[in-house]
Amino acid sequence: MEWLMGFGSRFITQLQSPTLAFLIGGALIVAMGSRLSIPNSIYQFIIFLLLMRIGMKGGIEIRSAEIGEMLLPAVFSVAVGIIIVLLGTGFFSLLARVRWSDGTATAGLFGAVSSSTLAAAMVLLEEQAVFFEAWVPALYPFMDIPALILAIVLSKLGTEKAGTRTSASTRILDVIKESIQGPALSALVLGLALGIFARPESVLEGFYNPIFRGLLSVLMFILGMEAYSRIRELKQVAHWFALYALAAPILHGLIGFALGYVAHILAGFSPGGVVLLSVIAASNSDISGPPTLRAGIPSANPSTYIGASTSIGTPVAIGICIPLFVSLAEMVFGV
Amino acid sequence: MEWLMGFGSRFITQLQSPTLAFLIGGALIVAMGSRLSIPNSIYQFIIFLLLMRIGMKGGIEIRSAEIGEMLLPAVFSVAVGIIIVLLGTGFFSLLARVRWSDGTATAGLFGAVSSSTLAAAMVLLEEQAVFFEAWVPALYPFMDIPALILAIVLSKLGTEKAGTRTSASTRILDVIKESIQGPALSALVLGLALGIFARPESVLEGFYNPIFRGLLSVLMFILGMEAYSRIRELKQVAHWFALYALAAPILHGLIGFALGYVAHILAGFSPGGVVLLSVIAASNSDISGPPTLRAGIPSANPSTYIGASTSIGTPVAIGICIPLFVSLAEMVFGV
Amino acid sequence: MEWLMGFGSRFITQLQSPTLAFLIGGALIVAMGSRLSIPNSIYQFIIFLLLMRIGMKGGIEIRSAEIGEMLLPAVFSVAVGIIIVLLGTGFFSLLARVRWSDGTATAGLFGAVSSSTLAAAMVLLEEQAVFFEAWVPALYPFMDIPALILAIVLSKLGTEKAGTRTSASTRILDVIKESIQGPALSALVLGLALGIFARPESVLEGFYNPIFRGLLSVLMFILGMEAYSRIRELKQVAHWFALYALAAPILHGLIGFALGYVAHILAGFSPGGVVLLSVIAASNSDISGPPTLRAGIPSANPSTYIGASTSIGTPVAIGICIPLFVSLAEMVFGV
Repeated sequence: MEWLMGFGSRFITQLQSPTLAFLIGGALIVAMGSRLSIPNSIYQFIIFLLLMRIGMKGGIEIRSAEIGEMLLPAVFSVAVGIIIVLLGTGFFSLLARVRWSDGTATAGLFGAVSSSTLAAAMVLLEEQAVFFEAWVPALYPFMDIPALILAIVLSKLGTEKAGTRTSASTRILDVIKESIQGPALSALVLGLALGIFARPESVLEGFYNPIFRGLLSVLMFILGMEAYSRIRELKQVAHWFALYALAAPILHGLIGFALGYVAHILAGFSPGGVVLLSVIAASNSDISGPPTLRAGIPSANPSTYIGASTSIGTPVAIGICIPLFVSLAEMVFGV
Repeated sequence: MEWLMGFGSRFITQLQSPTLAFLIGGALIVAMGSRLSIPNSIYQFIIFLLLMRIGMKGGIEIRSAEIGEMLLPAVFSVAVGIIIVLLGTGFFSLLARVRWSDGTATAGLFGAVSSSTLAAAMVLLEEQAVFFEAWVPALYPFMDIPALILAIVLSKLGTEKAGTRTSASTRILDVIKESIQGPALSALVLGLALGIFARPESVLEGFYNPIFRGLLSVLMFILGMEAYSRIRELKQVAHWFALYALAAPILHGLIGFALGYVAHILAGFSPGGVVLLSVIAASNSDISGPPTLRAGIPSANPSTYIGASTSIGTPVAIGICIPLFVSLAEMVFGV
Repeated sequence: MEWLMGFGSRFITQLQSPTLAFLIGGALIVAMGSRLSIPNSIYQFIIFLLLMRIGMKGGIEIRSAEIGEMLLPAVFSVAVGIIIVLLGTGFFSLLARVRWSDGTATAGLFGAVSSSTLAAAMVLLEEQAVFFEAWVPALYPFMDIPALILAIVLSKLGTEKAGTRTSASTRILDVIKESIQGPALSALVLGLALGIFARPESVLEGFYNPIFRGLLSVLMFILGMEAYSRIRELKQVAHWFALYALAAPILHGLIGFALGYVAHILAGFSPGGVVLLSVIAASNSDISGPPTLRAGIPSANPSTYIGASTSIGTPVAIGICIPLFVSLAEMVFGV
């Protein structure tokens, strides 16, 4: 009962957070028939700024990470990201009524990482004085970025399935190339490269970080507008997305836990690190996912992936998965 | 004589303030035949950001206000805002040469509130150790927003007067609905709703507030450009706007003082509060008004309302009305 | 050898700086065939904000300068800016394969000033306890802005050479007028006027300064994209630009030193001031130049002027000219 109330209050706080409030606001604006709109050139520029920042931040974390020590967990993070997207795409492809692009986008979003969920877990572990390696938070881009790239590539592969006749491997390479040439992945990969090879810290601190939350609020508003106008598409499939959003974080967290346990045995990865890897796997992105997927899979309906993630996926990840994996670690490692 | 000099130096400082300097700059750019322009998509986005911020700020002040205690002054604030717009619209409608949209926009701007004028009065009262309730500044959105909405609705009603045939009440409801569906009021009302029902403080502090003054300077520049190119329209009516801008703040302040006095008798509203309500009524907006009216009444000539307010209305409100109502309070309440 | 290594490490640091890294990033994006682009309306607005800020900053420095005392050095700064642009334009006009607009733009960029080079020299002098007048840094707009204006005017004069028939003096006045009416110089001159006559400090600190580096990074990205797509034009002339970029800073610094010496004799200009004037003359702009020239001479190929300045000119100015003029001052003044 207490759990349920905690879940409920978390749900309401979530609704009041700027991110979700702007999303709802965008939907209401369309619902009331407003003529308000955000010009397309502005939308394109916002996407550019958001993705450059996401890429640069990830790149800097990778550059400053102790690659040697974190090699195995990093490889496992990439693997978890790929597994999540493949599993999700497979699941949705079984459902005849779910559109291919909506399935890949949702799987991509659940493969991507929520830094606020991660932060919540870190705070909890610190409060309980559970040790974890300082580089663990730097694992997130290793799961986040491959998952988003794979989702976009899969989305393109699926939509082009019918027409082409060339050999599969040529086509896959072409699609990967074409995906990376798209505006979304170009900006993300460029940002990543700048973060790894250049020193963009000053301009990141002075410009890209301060405007990030604000521009994200505008993007959420735009996504809310689009989500409402396409909500009808969702009618006959909404329950499948709800089911996925409920079960996927727990399943993904368990995969993360299992691979983390292997890293514990093979390379002495700390129990606290295993918990955090599980939470990274369980989390679904409220930050990097929406802008990347909106620009990378423009045909996907934002009601599906954003709806699934923000209304159910994130509360499950925070409210159920964090306590679950902490308890599991206590059982397994006796922390 | 000293008063006159004080007024003069206040006038020059006002001219040098970023807001007015950018307005003049925009006019000069057109005067010198420059090909500089601000793209329309940028203008639309600036309006969106400014109005969302104005709405959210008002909403947060309303949310955190002690509604019970401030109920009567709040109702009176709404009333003053409505009376000012009706009076102003009535006055300008008597003048055959003044265009309807210019009259309603100017009345709306004088009904709206200048937070810097309000701040000047608060500083003065604090210096003189005159008590006022902490929630008095939160009265401003109660006057500001109804006045702007009413001005836009009246403007639409007037321009559609000729064509339609439906019953008056249907038409008014339609016009209110249509006004609120316009980009300006949609953003303002949405911001207000977010401020009241969500928790947008973090994104407001981190993004909308820091960029506000800067974007306002760009808007002022745009308005200056437009004002100069339409200055010819003003020739035969400029004296009426000047007369209005001179007399209206004093009259509006007296209305505010009278209703404030009623609240003092009925609900113990403090004498300091009565002074501030008068100043809120006397002030005319340099902040919320221009973006709202420019987007909400696009046919109005900014030379009229901005010219009337910034060149005469605001100096009168600060230089004449503040000392006037402080003295009046001394006489009436013996403060 | 040590010098060479110092030069090399300075070159690599330069490549990693946000400014240059974004330039290279833009080139890479085009090289990999990306469909990423920055909408033109965004580009126009960024140019507007950057040039307003550059103008306002220069204007404020001029306003707060002690004009009486610095009169002669200021006049000499204007003279140096003009001489540099005339010399550079003359040099490039001798080379048949170099396009007129590329020559004037490059000369303009080398006449403009790099505030980071100037800051490096000031730090060095302060470390060595060499005195210079506090207003010396305020000399930079006196060289920077005339050089950029002259380059744009010369560029227009050259391209219109063929068609027109009117008398030379009329044409020059027309071209100056038309240049100042262009978007780039309009914004620059307006910013300058606001800086001198208004009080834009608050909005400069609160908005234009914080976003400056960030928007500059976006502009550099755009310039990198354009530079790459036009790199082929450069093939047969690149060595001339490289030669110019190597020799010009040293020559310009010597001109600055000579005029500074005259000011020392005539008006007691300090030896430290003479060094700084030389460095201001030797430096080439990474800040004010690119946005002004990109918008003012749109036909010029950014690969030429940006390439010449950032890859060779700036390392020469910092790595060779600063130590050179400090040593020269020791010899001449016995500091």
